[in-house]
Amino acid sequence: MNDAQVAGPADPAGVDVPAELAEARRTIDNIDAALVHILAERFRCTQRVGHIKAAFGLPPADPAREARQVERLRALAAQSGLDPDFAETFLAFMVTEVIRHHEAIRAEYRSDS
Amino acid sequence: MNDAQVAGPADPAGVDVPAELAEARRTIDNIDAALVHILAERFRCTQRVGHIKAAFGLPPADPAREARQVERLRALAAQSGLDPDFAETFLAFMVTEVIRHHEAIRAEYRSDS
Repeated sequence: MNDAQVAGPADPAGVDVPAELAEARRTIDNIDAALVHILAERFRCTQRVGHIKAAFGLPPADPAREARQVERLRALAAQSGLDPDFAETFLAFMVTEVIRHHEAIRAEYRSDS
Repeated sequence: MNDAQVAGPADPAGVDVPAELAEARRTIDNIDAALVHILAERFRCTQRVGHIKAAFGLPPADPAREARQVERLRALAAQSGLDPDFAETFLAFMVTEVIRHHEAIRAEYRSDS
C-alpha cells in the first residue's frame, strides 16, 4: 500500500492498511475498552447477586427472569440496529458465565455452613 | 420499596425477590441496555471495515490484528477486574460474528463485479 494509505497508531505492528481502516480500528479499540469495563461492572453486580441468592437459598438460574431479559434485549437490539439473534446469543453467553459464578458462590456458602 | 423484600419493576412477573436482588437487577438491566447499544455501534463500525476490506481486496480475517486485540483486551480486563479468559472468549465471540459479516460483504462485492 502507498503513501496515501499508511497504518496509523492502531496498527503498531507496522503492516500498512488503508487509512480509513486504521481510523475505523481506532473506534473499535475504544469501543472494546468500553465493553471490557462495562462487562467488568456487570460481573461485579452479578457477583453481588450470587451472594444474595446463596444467602436466601435461591437457585443460581432463574428461567423466568432470563426469558424477560431475552425479550427486552431483543427489542432493544431491534431498535438500535443490532441483530436480535446476536443479542440473544450474547445474553446466553453472559448468563452461562454468571451461573457458573453463582454455583461457585453457593458451593462456598454450603462449605461454610 | 415497602415491606423490605418485595419485587420492584425489575421483576414485573410479580415473583417476590429480596429487595437487594431487585435493586441489583435494575443495575444489570441498565448495563445490558448500554451493552446492546455499544455492540450495535461496534457492528456498524465493523460493517464499514467489511466494505473497506472488500474494496481493497483484503481478507475478512486478520490474525495479526486479532492477536494484538487479545493481548490488549486481556490487559484491560486484568486492570478492571474482569476475568482475562472471559475477555478473550468474548472477543473471539464477536470476531466470529464480524468475520461472517465480512465474508457476506465480500461475496456481495464479487457478485457485483
